[in-house]
Amino acid sequence: MDAYSDRIRTLQPSAIREILKFTSYPDVISFAGGNPAPEAFPVKEIKEIMDDIMEHEPVTALQYSVSEGYTPLRDTIKDDLYAKGILNWNNDDVIITAGAQQCMEMTAKVLCNEGETIICEEPSFIGSLNSFRSYNAKLVGVPMDDDGIDPEKLEEALKEHRRTAFIYVIPNFQNPTGRTMSLERRKQVLELAYKYNVHIIEDNPYGDLRFAGDNVPSIRSMDTKGHVIYAGTFSKTVAPGLRVGYMCADKGIISKATCALQVSTVHTSILSQMIVHRFITKYDFKAHLERLQQIYGHKCDLMLTNLKMKMPKSITFTEPDGGLFIWGTLPDGDMDYFVKKAIDSKVAIVTGRAFLVDESKPTLSFRLNYSTPTDEQIERGVDILANVAKTMYK
Amino acid sequence: MDAYSDRIRTLQPSAIREILKFTSYPDVISFAGGNPAPEAFPVKEIKEIMDDIMEHEPVTALQYSVSEGYTPLRDTIKDDLYAKGILNWNNDDVIITAGAQQCMEMTAKVLCNEGETIICEEPSFIGSLNSFRSYNAKLVGVPMDDDGIDPEKLEEALKEHRRTAFIYVIPNFQNPTGRTMSLERRKQVLELAYKYNVHIIEDNPYGDLRFAGDNVPSIRSMDTKGHVIYAGTFSKTVAPGLRVGYMCADKGIISKATCALQVSTVHTSILSQMIVHRFITKYDFKAHLERLQQIYGHKCDLMLTNLKMKMPKSITFTEPDGGLFIWGTLPDGDMDYFVKKAIDSKVAIVTGRAFLVDESKPTLSFRLNYSTPTDEQIERGVDILANVAKTMYK
Repeated sequence: MDAYSDRIRTLQPSAIREILKFTSYPDVISFAGGNPAPEAFPVKEIKEIMDDIMEHEPVTALQYSVSEGYTPLRDTIKDDLYAKGILNWNNDDVIITAGAQQCMEMTAKVLCNEGETIICEEPSFIGSLNSFRSYNAKLVGVPMDDDGIDPEKLEEALKEHRRTAFIYVIPNFQNPTGRTMSLERRKQVLELAYKYNVHIIEDNPYGDLRFAGDNVPSIRSMDTKGHVIYAGTFSKTVAPGLRVGYMCADKGIISKATCALQVSTVHTSILSQMIVHRFITKYDFKAHLERLQQIYGHKCDLMLTNLKMKMPKSITFTEPDGGLFIWGTLPDGDMDYFVKKAIDSKVAIVTGRAFLVDESKPTLSFRLNYSTPTDEQIERGVDILANVAKTMYK
Repeated sequence: MDAYSDRIRTLQPSAIREILKFTSYPDVISFAGGNPAPEAFPVKEIKEIMDDIMEHEPVTALQYSVSEGYTPLRDTIKDDLYAKGILNWNNDDVIITAGAQQCMEMTAKVLCNEGETIICEEPSFIGSLNSFRSYNAKLVGVPMDDDGIDPEKLEEALKEHRRTAFIYVIPNFQNPTGRTMSLERRKQVLELAYKYNVHIIEDNPYGDLRFAGDNVPSIRSMDTKGHVIYAGTFSKTVAPGLRVGYMCADKGIISKATCALQVSTVHTSILSQMIVHRFITKYDFKAHLERLQQIYGHKCDLMLTNLKMKMPKSITFTEPDGGLFIWGTLPDGDMDYFVKKAIDSKVAIVTGRAFLVDESKPTLSFRLNYSTPTDEQIERGVDILANVAKTMYK
């Protein structure tokens, strides 16, 4: 017997997660994931913190808690967001979620009726697209260039789709392209949101992982009208297994998101929240972030240097200033064949189609991750990719 | 700016959670919550487990994991459910969730289109009702007697509401009434689900907390057609702050629920899952449950003895065989006034209206929790309640 809801009937597991099953074979080099580098986890510090929690506040860590989140963690995040101009104390609030992914799911639930439109960058993060699909949203992709989403095409989409709930963007080191949206573009996107009276979700999982270039102000820091919902996470900066992220938005939206969270997870694991709070306040979090930036900057540089040296010149790559991903594009031909040949040669990369609104559309691009593999795997993996590519391209 | 979705516009925070804010005052005796007894948390054992995890498998605990849940925990749960006749290895599967609450939210998402009907016992658990409301389901309450939901009225409801997605029941020590559904009734509910081709959610958070009477087989253990979705949790038996529950259903439903979970929390906190797995396999979980049964049996008995001795005879109380709650009913008059007078006298109890499909309907009942207060608070709290009641009833 099955009688699934309309919203869920056609939903499929993430294509990337299917690829990841293949990458668990020990002889496969995976450029397919998006996991933080395991050597970056603060294991010793988290062990100390757990001991301290279980010594002094075990009942707080084990008992039910409030849906909004652990107050000391919320306060710490609010202070940080206020310092960055992202939180306005009078109008805004913060709720703790099970990673930034839950922010996407809850925002779609709170703001988007079935059949309404959500506009996103194309390509974009498949996890978020699937969370929007899970509410039967109509996804509309807008192309990007090196400065981010194309503002003219964004306005065309807003004109055409009058029942748009929000625009979804990842301004810093976008997944999958690694691109950063320019300040000018951020202002244009915000103005268009005002003009067409829609919200923006600003998803910023990688913002603290900048290893090159100058910081660009977040869209929410320029928002004077409460249109922007900001999603952050500790998955890339502390540990994803703990599932701790947060949403900052105007108080009305946070109050509805709190209802949505209360009926789903009741509250985010309080033990996880206490671990994150202690780590970012009782240890040198700034030094920890600098160490992460150093690790990812080095790995990105190593992969790009190898790609430039070894791959055919006709294949191009983005050069990210942070984050976890490089976006490669073939000059022509059959990207699926290239990805398949790479996987046959035991290097897993992700087809660009996984990041499209319509996965059946053609694309010449593919995504490479440099955060999870070791240096040696990066060098050897690019060697293998280059050998595959040289049989196809000059 | 606000433009909430139809499904979320009228959703309100749980009335109980609002009462709980009041109960944080130190001079208030709370019979309003549903928290496990803090003295029942296995603090020493969990501390040992955390040390072991961070010593031997820190990266597993901190890295991303699979959406279905931590495999050793899933396998342990499957073995247990198989032994209870709840899981059929060929047809069924198990997914780990952030508490049983997430099972309710995901089942509504997976099975219920907006505007379709969900039938529940009346009164029923407000957290589940709110999760169904969050998908714009039409809630239909069916009255209960001491043996559980009324089968004739259930059939009337099924006849009247042909677009019913599922029937929601809590067969063991129901929240809020403390009642247990008889074996005969369980069979009748299952037959009606077959006859009208609807699913059943069998929510069993308290099943392991039986301190009197004989075990009654679960509805799912009698289900030969895959109609029943079974929800379990470690919130009442290990620790709710960890947020670990599970869903058992046929493979098709679990596969769709996995998609729904993947786009929301990605996976349940892996650290929490590892803690629960080690606690229930490496320690004497059976002895731990027996200790909990002893604690709750004692507290229930103490509260009932005091209620019978001190309260006016015209006020009646259910006598649960397990779980956390006693359901009181006034002979007549104004229940809201009684609850308000109790709260004014610093004893918090929950109005029965919080558990109705239509909260504006009249009721003479109220819910008492005995798991959280101490023995001394139970005796003093009933003294105070009795003084209030004696001014109103004989």
